[in-house]
Amino acid sequence: MNKTEIFAAYLEKTRVQIESELKKSLPTEWDMPESLRESMMYSLLAGGKRIRPILVLAAAEAVGGIAYIQAAMPVACAIEMIHTYSLIHDDLPPMDNDDYRRGKLTNHKVYGEAMAILAGDALLTHAFQQVVQSSRQYHVPAEQVLAIMDDLSTLAGAKGMVGGQAADMIGEQGITSLEQLQYIHLHKTGDLIVFSLKAGGRVAGATEQQLAALETFGRQIGLAFQIQDDVLDVIGDEQKLGKKTNSDVVMNKVTYPYFIGVEASQQEIERLTQEAKEAINSVDLKNPEQLIGIADYLMKRDH
Amino acid sequence: MNKTEIFAAYLEKTRVQIESELKKSLPTEWDMPESLRESMMYSLLAGGKRIRPILVLAAAEAVGGIAYIQAAMPVACAIEMIHTYSLIHDDLPPMDNDDYRRGKLTNHKVYGEAMAILAGDALLTHAFQQVVQSSRQYHVPAEQVLAIMDDLSTLAGAKGMVGGQAADMIGEQGITSLEQLQYIHLHKTGDLIVFSLKAGGRVAGATEQQLAALETFGRQIGLAFQIQDDVLDVIGDEQKLGKKTNSDVVMNKVTYPYFIGVEASQQEIERLTQEAKEAINSVDLKNPEQLIGIADYLMKRDH
Repeated sequence: MNKTEIFAAYLEKTRVQIESELKKSLPTEWDMPESLRESMMYSLLAGGKRIRPILVLAAAEAVGGIAYIQAAMPVACAIEMIHTYSLIHDDLPPMDNDDYRRGKLTNHKVYGEAMAILAGDALLTHAFQQVVQSSRQYHVPAEQVLAIMDDLSTLAGAKGMVGGQAADMIGEQGITSLEQLQYIHLHKTGDLIVFSLKAGGRVAGATEQQLAALETFGRQIGLAFQIQDDVLDVIGDEQKLGKKTNSDVVMNKVTYPYFIGVEASQQEIERLTQEAKEAINSVDLKNPEQLIGIADYLMKRDH
Repeated sequence: MNKTEIFAAYLEKTRVQIESELKKSLPTEWDMPESLRESMMYSLLAGGKRIRPILVLAAAEAVGGIAYIQAAMPVACAIEMIHTYSLIHDDLPPMDNDDYRRGKLTNHKVYGEAMAILAGDALLTHAFQQVVQSSRQYHVPAEQVLAIMDDLSTLAGAKGMVGGQAADMIGEQGITSLEQLQYIHLHKTGDLIVFSLKAGGRVAGATEQQLAALETFGRQIGLAFQIQDDVLDVIGDEQKLGKKTNSDVVMNKVTYPYFIGVEASQQEIERLTQEAKEAINSVDLKNPEQLIGIADYLMKRDH
């Protein structure tokens, strides 16, 4: 296998491990309405690249080596629960009103709007239960778990992801500057990616210097990821993307290509990826290869 | 002042303190969309008896004395945020579709459904940030804060409050037994009340025995509270309640009076209140008077 194939195998193996943990994440002995359980699991197991949880595990490995991957798993599940709840609520009729996601019916199309709201609320709440489990099951020190809780409740909340979603929604009435667009990208997508990296690092007992490098890495690949989404919407392959291209133009959404063109957007992705890798290479880490691999993979992705 | 007046003054003073803290609970320097901030604060400051946060403070005082009230304040704010988010989402058109709550327009009638969903999500997330603050600001030991997180993420989640809401929603197509009704009361209302008591106790370093007594107290007054709601809907004064009576009958909702009649329901409230007070009196506590006062107050309330 060449380097790209080895890395693709790593991503696939890790994705499978994460999905196996997600399947077990709601204890079967819990006394709760069956339809709520089904609705939560339907969206949690609806596929996707699982980039955020993979970043949690890769950051733990970068700081502490493979011995820390297992202890980072509950936090990896937590971030996927946050991501999933945000998609369920985002798809609701008053928000984006989407009937399909990744080729499957959206949660509210299957379980109704009321249950979709509750499933989202339950997943968001359960994410914090997962973080507690990293202390209960794997003895991550309470102080570190608390720091993870601090980050999660800030980066996923009013001045983090939810703030980004609100700005995006308000912005549908007209974004006029690249700065406004950057605010949305930074928070709606970027904050959870930054969280994933810092949290993985914290599980492995990262120093302040390592955490700062992980944060910069997350900030830059997060923005690059979002610009790549915008670019793929213009020049991507509909077959590979699993959705129609040019939807941003049709929906009148302003994007990076809209402001600076496709070519300059692609250069920006490369510049950000380079800066992300430099941040990681500038600090002492046990095993940063997977993080570097993810940065390169995301830059070259075609879906 | 007689005993009842002294206690009424305590409730009023504490309510005012809590509202003053809630007003400060979203840092003004946070960079977030102004309309999201407004929407969150609109519902958080829309009044109410603030019973849950008062229980947090009273439990902390019971275990550790008045020295612990301040350290319990962030958790008191947290539980009010959870309660508020659940009301915002509950009022949405796909759920209860209510236009008014406590005489004011519901959140989505003022800010729109999309913003109401996001404001609820942000309040739920911010509740966990508040719990972190009890460690950061008041140096509650990390292990105790983690135990509070553990309780909150369980009791407010899929097998707790959200589970109760889902059961209630499903039950609107026909609750047939008192057991089903008890499941809904136990989780939709009871779990947050139990949380409030245990969390207040934990802030003050409660022993396992004290926590067990606080849990029993919470379980019994929680159920009594809910039965009292049902009874007031039948025999209450519309002026004092601020809403129409007999709405349960009109809405075809099954209730305690429906199953066992008004008189037996009232006896049940008294029995539960008695058991709650006995649980508290059976353990060594520094200052349990406020808890006992709240149990009596709730039993006699007319709104």
